[in-house]
Formats: sequence, structure tokens, C-alpha cells
Amino acid sequence: MSISLDPDDSVVVLAHGKFPERAKTAIGVLRYADYDVTAVLDRDRAGETVADHVPDVPDTPIVESMDAALDVADPDALVIGIAPIGGGFDESWRPDVRTAIEAECDVIAGLHYFLADDEEFAALAAERGVDLIDVRRPPEDLTVSEGRARDADAEVVLTVGTDCSTGKMTTTLELVAAARDRGIDAGFVPTGQTGIMIAGWGTPVDRVISDFAAGAVERMVLDAAPDHDVLFVEGQGTIVHPAYSGVTCSLLHGSMPDSLVMVHSAGRDVIHGYEDYAIPPVETYVDLYEGLAAPVAPTTVAAGALDTRTFDDDDVAAREAVDAYATALDAPATDPVRFGADEVLDALL
Amino acid sequence: MSISLDPDDSVVVLAHGKFPERAKTAIGVLRYADYDVTAVLDRDRAGETVADHVPDVPDTPIVESMDAALDVADPDALVIGIAPIGGGFDESWRPDVRTAIEAECDVIAGLHYFLADDEEFAALAAERGVDLIDVRRPPEDLTVSEGRARDADAEVVLTVGTDCSTGKMTTTLELVAAARDRGIDAGFVPTGQTGIMIAGWGTPVDRVISDFAAGAVERMVLDAAPDHDVLFVEGQGTIVHPAYSGVTCSLLHGSMPDSLVMVHSAGRDVIHGYEDYAIPPVETYVDLYEGLAAPVAPTTVAAGALDTRTFDDDDVAAREAVDAYATALDAPATDPVRFGADEVLDALL
Repeated sequence: MSISLDPDDSVVVLAHGKFPERAKTAIGVLRYADYDVTAVLDRDRAGETVADHVPDVPDTPIVESMDAALDVADPDALVIGIAPIGGGFDESWRPDVRTAIEAECDVIAGLHYFLADDEEFAALAAERGVDLIDVRRPPEDLTVSEGRARDADAEVVLTVGTDCSTGKMTTTLELVAAARDRGIDAGFVPTGQTGIMIAGWGTPVDRVISDFAAGAVERMVLDAAPDHDVLFVEGQGTIVHPAYSGVTCSLLHGSMPDSLVMVHSAGRDVIHGYEDYAIPPVETYVDLYEGLAAPVAPTTVAAGALDTRTFDDDDVAAREAVDAYATALDAPATDPVRFGADEVLDALL
Repeated sequence: MSISLDPDDSVVVLAHGKFPERAKTAIGVLRYADYDVTAVLDRDRAGETVADHVPDVPDTPIVESMDAALDVADPDALVIGIAPIGGGFDESWRPDVRTAIEAECDVIAGLHYFLADDEEFAALAAERGVDLIDVRRPPEDLTVSEGRARDADAEVVLTVGTDCSTGKMTTTLELVAAARDRGIDAGFVPTGQTGIMIAGWGTPVDRVISDFAAGAVERMVLDAAPDHDVLFVEGQGTIVHPAYSGVTCSLLHGSMPDSLVMVHSAGRDVIHGYEDYAIPPVETYVDLYEGLAAPVAPTTVAAGALDTRTFDDDDVAAREAVDAYATALDAPATDPVRFGADEVLDALL
């Protein structure tokens, strides 16, 4: 999957009814993508701006429709920045997508429903010469891992977690940015739909046939390694997840990382969406990830990242939580968003 | 996936050029399926019989073609009992498949290439009213695991292994047979193409989208549990496999077994096909499988199965190897094919 967006391109991000709290992809794109966002579509917040809700990102108007967004600027693409449960296409978005295609914008989506398979959109896109890019559609030529990622000519760092949605993508991107700030040639290996939209390439490992999941990761690592000195691989799920542990395991053995960063969300004590399943002590995760890696490609948890947003603006409490987390891990830790990624970067490189 | 074969139906098994050593599916069907095999197709061994090569299964002629097989009996189906590397369709089989369909036989295959998508076969099958059954095509309505297999109203036993092709399917089927011999209502949960062909139902977990792999296993366990007192779930791969560990992990967390049977192949010291990867001591596997299960659904390795075919007919050496394996596992062990499954069944039920 490769998206033809350059740093000087610009996009509109659709987030109807969900901006900002339930628009993880929209926020990720606003915060980390190289390309500009000229407007966010949320008909419930039209007239507000991104800065009213999200600090530390370039401000952008929130408008009610693609028509209104075209009055603001002349974007290159429309990005679908939200996903309903189940990953379907919300028919209320159809006029915006139609307008975008008619305005010769590419449309980029990470839904289970593929826009390129939609008859109306496919016909219109062909007529206007624009691309419908479904980042969740895996390549068709994937195959099994050959067990070669440990030969990659780059240092490989993988984020692993105690649960889904603990901040693995954010941690990975903050580490890439911190490394680049130091002049290190760092690459980002995206493995989920938001990461792929941000980076413009990648394979959605959770959508790959399970036999080929490690192979998909291996291929990305081997493809990216020659171009960088360090690769930061976006992790997925957790090794003790009742539903997604297989994806996590494939990432661990497919990427064969030199080191791991353990990502946790402060205060989380049960698996998100599976509340009958307790999150064990972080020491248990260290043993499991390192133990599982050892016979294939030994690695260690070299650092930790803790999402401390639960402490709001209480930096003192957040710092205490990070310190306690570092002690439990027996490794340096930080909240990369609140405190920066510098301290953990030293432990990794 | 459900195959409409009854115990009084009969099949022909295609194994051109590969019978018996490289025809794992053909041997599995001959040994364990309820339905009869009226002929094996292997043009290199035409005129021989199955008993010339495989002990302890009903004897069956080996013939050169489907035409010749129809002279022997009037079968209900043709089973493709071999798979080339990559799972493609070998065009040299086309006349046999065509002849089978023309004779109103269903055709059952476990290839990556789906017979139902082959234009000639699809048209001919429609004309003759027969089914083309691709057991490797997963159901389209799979979804994520809900973490409910631990509520299954049956004892659940999962086979796990030190590598691929160590005898997990064979061990599982021998345990089912031994349990049924005792009058126990035991069910077999098939997770790979050969198991599915033998049982007539099941989902090929390695072909499922990785996000849904645990969910596919969970569904099979929950569907089968009400009909049985004990379920024996066919394991796949190994948790330390460079390519397939994700499938194994999904089986462990998807099935939430009450106990595990560790299956090893005597003398194997490197991962099959990945010879740079050593097989660690069996104690390491016990720690990994039990450790990984613990936070989700605790279980223990309650017994072991060792494939001792490497000792040929030296039962004394085989017994010594089994005893040493049991000591390392700290659990009862057997070679279920050579010595029967009774001793380990006691440890499981």
C-alpha cells in the first residue's frame, strides 16, 4: 500500500460527529502527517476550529461539508478520519465523498468497506482520474515469513503494549521524531490504518491472512531497512489479548526487533472492551515478550512509555506515575507526549 | 465449512507422484475418515495397493487415473490428497477432476487455489449438479473473538507442539478415538485442511484474517461444545515458529483449553524448513504456553505425545525416548500411534 501524498500536498479530514474524542485517525493525521490539513469535516462542530479542542497541532477550520471545505482551500485528497464500529461506510458521508471525487481529490480510507469496490465511487473516480485508496486492503502477493528480519541492515525497535489503544502508534511516531531531531536517519514502519495514512505506505497486519502476518511484517522491515539506520515498528494489540494476541505475536516474530518499548496507559487495569480480563503486572508482560522472542530472535524491553493523560495537567502526579512504571519495568520510561521521548531514546540507541 | 459426506459414502483420493511419503492429507483420510476410500490415484504407483506402503489402514488399490478408479467402484467424491508447495493446482490433475465431475462426484480440495473459482470446473459442476468444496476457504462472516471460550460447556483439550508437522492432528484424532473407545462423548475440532476433510467440517485457521483467527477458533469451540463432553482441538504450528506463531497464539487464546498436550517429533532439533532456528528444550515450551495462557485462561501441559517413527520398529528405543520425554515434561507421555493414547487420556480426563 502506497499513498501518493507529498509533504506539500494538503488534505481534508472527515470526522462527522466524532471530533475530537472518537476520531483517533483524524487526530493522528493532524498531529503527525507531513502533509497539511486544510479543513476537518464535522457537521456537529462546524464553525469551530481544531485549536478549540486539540493543543499542539496547526489550527484548521472545522466545516460542515466537503463543499464548504472547497471554499477554504484546494486540497489534494479527502481522508476518512473516523470508523464506525464494524468498519462500515456511513451513507451520510456519500455526498462528501462524491463532491471530493468531482473536485479531483483522491479519497483515502481505512474502512473494512472498500471504497474502490463501491460502484458509484469507482465509476466517478475513473471518470475524474482520481485514486480511491483503501489502506486496509492488504497486498495480494503476501507470503509466509522466511525468518530473515534479524538480518535487516538497521537497528529495529518495536513498540509492544499491555493492551490495545495504549499509545503504541503515538510512542512510535514520537520516537521517530525525537531521533530525527538528533540527526538520526530513523524510519517509521506502519502496521495499522492510521499509521499507514500518516506515513503514506504500510500493510495493515490485522487484515492479513494469519499465515502471512509475520511475513507481511518481515517484508516491510526488509524493504525499509536499507533506507534508514533505525526502524521504529508500530506495534499492535497485546500478547495477552483474548482476540488479537495472534497479531501481536506475528509482529514480534516477524520484525525480530533489537529492542522493545513497553507501552501502557496509566490507570488501565482491564483489557479494553474485554473487562472480564485483568491486565497483569507489567513484569509479567516483560517476561512474556522476552520469553517468547528468545527462541526466535532474543530481545529485551529496553524502555517504557506511559500514557498519563488521566492525570490531566498534574505533571507532578504524571511524573510519579512514570517513575513508578520505570521501576516496575527496570528500564527508563517517559510519557513521550507530556515529557518528550529523549530519555527513552538514550536507552534504545 | 461443512462437507456432505456420510460414513457410508466413499471417495477416491488423488495423490499423483507423492504417495505415501509426501501425501499427508491422503494418509490422514485413509487412516481417520469415517467414509471409505475406493482407490488412490498415483500414476507412478498404479497397480500397487495401499497396503504395500501403509500398515493398519483398510487396503485399497492404487490406480493411474479417475477413469480407472471408476472401473473399481462408484465413489461419491474425489478428494485432492496432496498439495504442491504454494498450494497451487497442478494442471496435470485437470483430466481427473473433469472426469470426476462428469461422473457426478463432488470434488473436495484444500488448496490455496479454489476449484470453485476455476471457470471450467465451475461450469461443469453446475451442469452436473455436484459440489466443488474448497475446505481452505474460510467463512465470510467471521469476526473477532469475544473471549467466551472459557464458558464452553465441555472439557477442552488443545494439542500444542514444538514445531509444525510433529503429529498434532494425529495425536488429537488418536485421543478422540481412545476416548470414544471408553464410551466418552468426545468431539474433534478441526483447524486445518486435512482435519476438515476427515471430519467434514471446520475452519482453516491459517487462512483466516489475523484479527479474526481467535474468533474463528472460539466459534468452533462454542458451536461444538453443546454436543460433546470433551472437545479435542487440533493445534497448529508452534509458539516459537518464525512464520506461523501468530496462528498458534490465536488457537491458544481462542480455544481457552482446560489442558494442553505437548506434541514433539523425536530427534527433531531445528524448526522444519527454518533450519537456522533451533528447537529449545521442551521445558521452555511448557513455560511459554502456560505463561502465555495464564493471564487469559490458565491451563497446564497435562500430557505429552512423541512421534517415535524415527526408531522404526525398535519399540524398546521408542519406549526409552517416550519415558525421557515424559520426565522432561513432568507429565505422562506416549506415542499414540505406536503405544496407544490410553496412558495420556487418564491424565487429561
